[in-house]
Amino acid sequence: MTSAPSTPASVASHAVSHRVADLTLAPAGRHQIRLAENEMPGLMALRAEFGPSQPLAGARIMGSLHMTVQTAVLIETLVALGAQVRWVSCNIFSTQDEAAAAVVVGPSGTVDEPAGVPVFAWKGETLTEYWWCTDRAFDWSEEALAERESGGDADWIGPNMILDDGGDATLLVHKGREFELAGRVPDTTPGDSEEYAVILDLLRDSVLDQPDRFTRIAAEIRGVSEETTTGVHRLYELAAAGELLFPAINVNDSVTKSKFDNKYGIRHSLPDGLNRATDVLMGGKVAFVVGYGDVGKGAAEALRGQGARVIVSEIDPICALQAAMDGFQVSRLESVVGEVDIFVTGTGNVNVIGVDDILNMKHLAIVSNVGHFDNEIDMAGLARLEGAEKVEIKPQVHEWRLPNGRSVLVLSEGRLMNLGNATGHPSFVMSNSFTNQVLAQIELFVTPEKYPVGVYVLPKHLDEKVARLHLDALGVELTTLRPEQAAYIGVPVEGPYKVDHYRY
Amino acid sequence: MTSAPSTPASVASHAVSHRVADLTLAPAGRHQIRLAENEMPGLMALRAEFGPSQPLAGARIMGSLHMTVQTAVLIETLVALGAQVRWVSCNIFSTQDEAAAAVVVGPSGTVDEPAGVPVFAWKGETLTEYWWCTDRAFDWSEEALAERESGGDADWIGPNMILDDGGDATLLVHKGREFELAGRVPDTTPGDSEEYAVILDLLRDSVLDQPDRFTRIAAEIRGVSEETTTGVHRLYELAAAGELLFPAINVNDSVTKSKFDNKYGIRHSLPDGLNRATDVLMGGKVAFVVGYGDVGKGAAEALRGQGARVIVSEIDPICALQAAMDGFQVSRLESVVGEVDIFVTGTGNVNVIGVDDILNMKHLAIVSNVGHFDNEIDMAGLARLEGAEKVEIKPQVHEWRLPNGRSVLVLSEGRLMNLGNATGHPSFVMSNSFTNQVLAQIELFVTPEKYPVGVYVLPKHLDEKVARLHLDALGVELTTLRPEQAAYIGVPVEGPYKVDHYRY
Amino acid sequence: MTSAPSTPASVASHAVSHRVADLTLAPAGRHQIRLAENEMPGLMALRAEFGPSQPLAGARIMGSLHMTVQTAVLIETLVALGAQVRWVSCNIFSTQDEAAAAVVVGPSGTVDEPAGVPVFAWKGETLTEYWWCTDRAFDWSEEALAERESGGDADWIGPNMILDDGGDATLLVHKGREFELAGRVPDTTPGDSEEYAVILDLLRDSVLDQPDRFTRIAAEIRGVSEETTTGVHRLYELAAAGELLFPAINVNDSVTKSKFDNKYGIRHSLPDGLNRATDVLMGGKVAFVVGYGDVGKGAAEALRGQGARVIVSEIDPICALQAAMDGFQVSRLESVVGEVDIFVTGTGNVNVIGVDDILNMKHLAIVSNVGHFDNEIDMAGLARLEGAEKVEIKPQVHEWRLPNGRSVLVLSEGRLMNLGNATGHPSFVMSNSFTNQVLAQIELFVTPEKYPVGVYVLPKHLDEKVARLHLDALGVELTTLRPEQAAYIGVPVEGPYKVDHYRY
Amino acid sequence: MTSAPSTPASVASHAVSHRVADLTLAPAGRHQIRLAENEMPGLMALRAEFGPSQPLAGARIMGSLHMTVQTAVLIETLVALGAQVRWVSCNIFSTQDEAAAAVVVGPSGTVDEPAGVPVFAWKGETLTEYWWCTDRAFDWSEEALAERESGGDADWIGPNMILDDGGDATLLVHKGREFELAGRVPDTTPGDSEEYAVILDLLRDSVLDQPDRFTRIAAEIRGVSEETTTGVHRLYELAAAGELLFPAINVNDSVTKSKFDNKYGIRHSLPDGLNRATDVLMGGKVAFVVGYGDVGKGAAEALRGQGARVIVSEIDPICALQAAMDGFQVSRLESVVGEVDIFVTGTGNVNVIGVDDILNMKHLAIVSNVGHFDNEIDMAGLARLEGAEKVEIKPQVHEWRLPNGRSVLVLSEGRLMNLGNATGHPSFVMSNSFTNQVLAQIELFVTPEKYPVGVYVLPKHLDEKVARLHLDALGVELTTLRPEQAAYIGVPVEGPYKVDHYRY
Repeated sequence: MTSAPSTPASVASHAVSHRVADLTLAPAGRHQIRLAENEMPGLMALRAEFGPSQPLAGARIMGSLHMTVQTAVLIETLVALGAQVRWVSCNIFSTQDEAAAAVVVGPSGTVDEPAGVPVFAWKGETLTEYWWCTDRAFDWSEEALAERESGGDADWIGPNMILDDGGDATLLVHKGREFELAGRVPDTTPGDSEEYAVILDLLRDSVLDQPDRFTRIAAEIRGVSEETTTGVHRLYELAAAGELLFPAINVNDSVTKSKFDNKYGIRHSLPDGLNRATDVLMGGKVAFVVGYGDVGKGAAEALRGQGARVIVSEIDPICALQAAMDGFQVSRLESVVGEVDIFVTGTGNVNVIGVDDILNMKHLAIVSNVGHFDNEIDMAGLARLEGAEKVEIKPQVHEWRLPNGRSVLVLSEGRLMNLGNATGHPSFVMSNSFTNQVLAQIELFVTPEKYPVGVYVLPKHLDEKVARLHLDALGVELTTLRPEQAAYIGVPVEGPYKVDHYRY
Repeated sequence: MTSAPSTPASVASHAVSHRVADLTLAPAGRHQIRLAENEMPGLMALRAEFGPSQPLAGARIMGSLHMTVQTAVLIETLVALGAQVRWVSCNIFSTQDEAAAAVVVGPSGTVDEPAGVPVFAWKGETLTEYWWCTDRAFDWSEEALAERESGGDADWIGPNMILDDGGDATLLVHKGREFELAGRVPDTTPGDSEEYAVILDLLRDSVLDQPDRFTRIAAEIRGVSEETTTGVHRLYELAAAGELLFPAINVNDSVTKSKFDNKYGIRHSLPDGLNRATDVLMGGKVAFVVGYGDVGKGAAEALRGQGARVIVSEIDPICALQAAMDGFQVSRLESVVGEVDIFVTGTGNVNVIGVDDILNMKHLAIVSNVGHFDNEIDMAGLARLEGAEKVEIKPQVHEWRLPNGRSVLVLSEGRLMNLGNATGHPSFVMSNSFTNQVLAQIELFVTPEKYPVGVYVLPKHLDEKVARLHLDALGVELTTLRPEQAAYIGVPVEGPYKVDHYRY
Repeated sequence: MTSAPSTPASVASHAVSHRVADLTLAPAGRHQIRLAENEMPGLMALRAEFGPSQPLAGARIMGSLHMTVQTAVLIETLVALGAQVRWVSCNIFSTQDEAAAAVVVGPSGTVDEPAGVPVFAWKGETLTEYWWCTDRAFDWSEEALAERESGGDADWIGPNMILDDGGDATLLVHKGREFELAGRVPDTTPGDSEEYAVILDLLRDSVLDQPDRFTRIAAEIRGVSEETTTGVHRLYELAAAGELLFPAINVNDSVTKSKFDNKYGIRHSLPDGLNRATDVLMGGKVAFVVGYGDVGKGAAEALRGQGARVIVSEIDPICALQAAMDGFQVSRLESVVGEVDIFVTGTGNVNVIGVDDILNMKHLAIVSNVGHFDNEIDMAGLARLEGAEKVEIKPQVHEWRLPNGRSVLVLSEGRLMNLGNATGHPSFVMSNSFTNQVLAQIELFVTPEKYPVGVYVLPKHLDEKVARLHLDALGVELTTLRPEQAAYIGVPVEGPYKVDHYRY
Repeated sequence: MTSAPSTPASVASHAVSHRVADLTLAPAGRHQIRLAENEMPGLMALRAEFGPSQPLAGARIMGSLHMTVQTAVLIETLVALGAQVRWVSCNIFSTQDEAAAAVVVGPSGTVDEPAGVPVFAWKGETLTEYWWCTDRAFDWSEEALAERESGGDADWIGPNMILDDGGDATLLVHKGREFELAGRVPDTTPGDSEEYAVILDLLRDSVLDQPDRFTRIAAEIRGVSEETTTGVHRLYELAAAGELLFPAINVNDSVTKSKFDNKYGIRHSLPDGLNRATDVLMGGKVAFVVGYGDVGKGAAEALRGQGARVIVSEIDPICALQAAMDGFQVSRLESVVGEVDIFVTGTGNVNVIGVDDILNMKHLAIVSNVGHFDNEIDMAGLARLEGAEKVEIKPQVHEWRLPNGRSVLVLSEGRLMNLGNATGHPSFVMSNSFTNQVLAQIELFVTPEKYPVGVYVLPKHLDEKVARLHLDALGVELTTLRPEQAAYIGVPVEGPYKVDHYRY
């Protein structure tokens, strides 16, 4: 096993079974978890429904997903359903340290006697630390040992389920097994990214240490559930290439994920990020939203709801027509760039706002991204711009002074500003996404016969179930089909109610 | 051929090649067609693009679709692309007589020398007349004769393409061929609907007259394009049963049809119908929308836009959650029935408002349907209610005096009130739907090799094309992907841009 | 008295005590009145509250206000409170003939034995007819005679109250008395408008017939209530000049009139007029609203609620800033005229859309007015435009073919299109305005000591009462101040609650 | 003069001419001031217009208004117009320490050599400190001394203008003079509030020190401008009692203050406060807004814009009817209290949410106030509730555990949560309010002859000017009246455009 990289001082004194910033943050984290549970009715309903039957008993889930308060509720739901769990964050900045600490301590433990789940995550990891954490979460020898000590006969060395966000955990297993079978880990080449070099280093150590470790782990894994567009894209590529090693459920394309997280999550967190970053009045301002997919739809609605005049740009004529029918001006960026106060990108594409665009903006225009990576806005190009100067107004808010004498305000350095300047999606939205995750884990673990190796979306009745579990909390009364009505439209009384291609 | 049933007096004197109410209405109709052309940029763009190449030359299209002003623009677009056309309405009430007359006269003809397209339709047909019209539109002997007289060698007796709305034309061919092959038309049984009895009568006459007529017609038909949920449902059933006789394109599920016609069309025509029927202020009133699919979404948005407080009911938990997230109260009908001023159904299901509900309504509550057939509201049950009295306030607006001393106002006798009390969807919306129809006709006629017998949706690039053709008229500027951006997201620069299951 | 001008044939046979188009329309009118009563809770509540005490017993009210179904409910409310009433319309086109007939017949009368109120109004009067009607409504000799016959000692010749809309009735009394005192009616001069010439002719006849008629009438009149901006403006001018003859209550500036009728009435009736006139989709279109007062606010909200993109113009910087803060683009007409689909004026000013603007519009742009007179749009200039041609598409909808080859659609010839193309404000809105009218009549008639000659607005507690009477019908629960709360903010528990300059 | 109370350590070392938390915060404050200037176009325009003519030369302005970044821009505008200024905050918690420091340092000064304006304010003053600060800002002896040293003959001891927010500065002068004339300061009685006792103590010291100090100050003061409802109320009471000592301009009732600050400010800052306090999703939740005045209108619009379902309560039937017409459910609190997720009060009244209401709320319902004092919610009653426990979740967010086993979340201890949990109104909104303040100061100082002792609102042309100065920044194009149009409606081309009672 690779040696542990340097971690925060406070971590060093903790047991080897976890690495978090500071366990004494746990009480504050537990407060927040308790409040979040109230906003995550889907997960709490799963605890009530499945707690008695323990469908995940025997499941060893390795989770790689932002270690936030909401994720803490997810983790403890998995535990409540019988699973053993180890966790890492899927982003070097996204861990909420008090949440990580609270999960380690657990609801019944204390700082001195933690009774929770092993977590390897803290806010502000290096890349080396990040991948070390990921690797550690694959090492279940402690758990195996504990099981054997209590009379079991555990002989496994890793998880049998992955819960993934972005696909890094899945990547590591696939790459690890590939290189083990090949007998060697390739040399790092100049063209490799910094991060890939870190991965190769880690795997070289691993192969030296246990030449068949990931091969054995991969053989044990019954499936992965994945919730991001990017991660799902990787899974479909692996499946198409015949290289996928275990079945996968694409949670991202559940309606209760894609149409809720993207649209309603952004509607909430975009204005929140703008406010915390700049305190600038949105009312009366001209806002420009790049892209009118679900993210752009949520952004445009939020800005209009605050009295901004919203202009949208689109490359897809169908989405462009939707924007027009929803009452928005649809223009190319270059047509209106000089009259816009607030720019928001949400496309998943690169360089949708370029340096030339930035040079044409009003003085102190706000430039922000809620879509994807920091390359939606050409931050690299801006960094290379001769005569441009970056002045920090406050963390995650920078004034870029341009050679033309004007400035723009860039939020979160071009990264997701709803995460960087605010706190991301609220608990209720995440409850939808995570309830999908838990149901996907149950499906894959309990009924593997339904899922030969391949990529699946959750069956519609489970997608509907996720929605159903969130209705009571909102005071929604659902109407029940009468049998003759169900017969008339040819669906079961209890659903599912729509054809698969229904667009909602 | 069956003998013509009685038709309006004014029809009797016209040529046998059409049956419309009154040809002298044509000039008024041509005025309206000219204005509608300005609102149907998709169809006009197809004329410009395909007029020179005449892709529909040789096509003999039998159309069965509401004979309105908008349909007139569709028909003349098909002609402009080279097709021969015969037309009927697909509903006994939906013909606009001046539009029918204008189509018969044609843009270059006169009332005395019509130069247009044969149409068999007038407002207020009986069921017998309706099916007689449908049957007549299958009889292309006049056209064949004309072609032979001008030197051709036409030997066909019917169309080679169907453009359908609701599937009645398709039904007649399938039933006709089925009975011809069976050698007999079944006897009418007591359980048959009045309409089915009419169809059986017609086919009995047909078989007597030409025992292989529909068999020959079916063999000639290259395909059908169909634009309604109901019609598409029939097609999938036929295909599943192995009984579909020719390929079909499901135009209904084009995004530019289902998400535009249903949502934006209803948003427009629902308040229009309420106003023309009742002149009742919507602002401040409580409106109840049954169903939050695309129709319900459009209805709820329109009512909120007029200041009504909207309550929604749903049976599908996903749509119910969407309604809640969009800020609407979601309740069961029985929970709030007594406080509602305006009821709107849009479900496609039966008896979603029952007689018991009606008895619990406020005095003079408005009850209306924009969803489907007149059985969404239990009109049959209401008609049977002891002590209820129906008083006509004006055409399509009836006060039902209830035995409990209260009254309700029922619009369009429970049928589609946006058609019955107003004028249906506006031209711009229909331009989207009809541009899909024309593209589907071209696909099926020009590239039959791509469409073996089965049911298809239009390829996404054509769906996008429909949208694209409507952007200029709205002043929408579409952004163009740069090649490196297209490569980044893995799509062609010119589209299509989304995976097939994308929900928009 | 002047001789009666020609009236519709059907009128000639009716009793001298009224002139309406056709009494046989009364049953249809009574149906509509019954439905309207359900939408006019303020008036019905006044009947319940004041019917027993008959506060208007002894009042002889001459009303000059659009003779519609809603006005019928107003008239019958005045009667229910004890008043004698005679009525005329205040516009040559605005009479609904079935409503006029129904009022004459009355709720308990029949066509053969009318038992209602004398009405002098029909749709489509000439100017001469219009002023003849107005004059007739001042002639109460029949009523005086009837009263004397039943034992009373009536010696009056006219009303003792005026209920006015636009000030024509008030004008006639003031001018009549002025000329009587002067001993002669001035000669008509070339500069006089056609309408003023008609008035002078009428008064010349009147002076000849009864030289002190209006002097005696004026002396009897206890007051007038007036509900339009224009009429109120005339009253303030008269008062400022010391020429006002009796007290006046300005109903127009009650909050429940100006902020409701103007804003919510237009929100309802503008899209209604557009739909009935053109059936053009508003969604996705660019609409231009001239003026962002209450009328413009209602128009902009309605258009946005239908998915249009709304651009506003304003001359008042405060209203312009409000428009911007509400999310609308604010531009000068000339900046955007070529990209607008729908124009709406609502300013009360002249030539806000000029001929030059019209020449710069898109082909088939819609031009309409909901603000004021037909001079908001320069219709006179358009009529003079060389090479322009006016083509009637249907009544109240004209295509103006311009010399530049384009056309525009002008609605209602530039007059109020919500009246001309639709049915004006709905009953519920009018109930607010008319409840103010009735309360003003009671104030002036019952407590004249509170109102020396001058112009007044209704006291705030009555304005609040108007609102209060409309709450139950909308299911609104009003909260009651506790005494300590009332004391804390220094108002009575039962109101009024706001300072006079409060803006709502 | 009273002896200085204990102040933060960092203050002790600064010059006597100011007291702020820490001057080293100044650079951070200047960054923020620069950004705020970009959002306060009204103030910047006044600098450009009036800088050259220095209308406030000779003015000695004592300002008592929240010492925020926006106020810094106001202060420096007053200086740019020629005034000498001394400043205090009008709330013990509202000072932004970096803004206070930046004002002291000034745009051209340094931390070591401050060149700005004397400020006496820091975040978290005690009541004693607060009134000591206020008192210090009245002591202009240093300035007088400096003027005499530079050759002038200053003999004054205090300001000659007051710029007030809440009326504390005005109160102190009035009370000080009253007690000086009476010859003694009354004894503190048990019924006096804690704060009034502090004031009495301060004035006792003052009278001992200089028996005619406030009498002399009052004689010098030319006027006060006041911007709050509360402060204005005090002024009208003083004027009514004949006790007002100098003219006052009521800035609060400028349209550009009351209709902008209250409505658009709250629309912005309410959701901001909810987000920063709780991160709870607003979409789909039930929100209850107490009061539908301008504050409530802004709150309801903001919550609806985020997808919440909003229920409103009102005591004024006019506002209640407006809420209904705007599409909101209007209910009494007790009717729906158990189904509400988020409560917001904005009434200016007391105990609009009582302890009984709180006991009926859902678990973890959010209770917050944006209206007025902390007595809108009965915080005192809650504190007395037997068995209730207050748990701090984070600063300004408390969970109150109730004896019934449920909890509620109370924001900012019942005080203004948009200030306590967020940052209050944004700069652009404050620019409107503050531009009114500056214009009022100029009016009172430059043209005192127009303002005999009394309370005035700004003339409408200045209200319009405030709006006008904010249009360019939003890209608003204002239309100009043509002379014939101005004549037609009887207003000057350059305004004012509306009658005084116009409600906007």
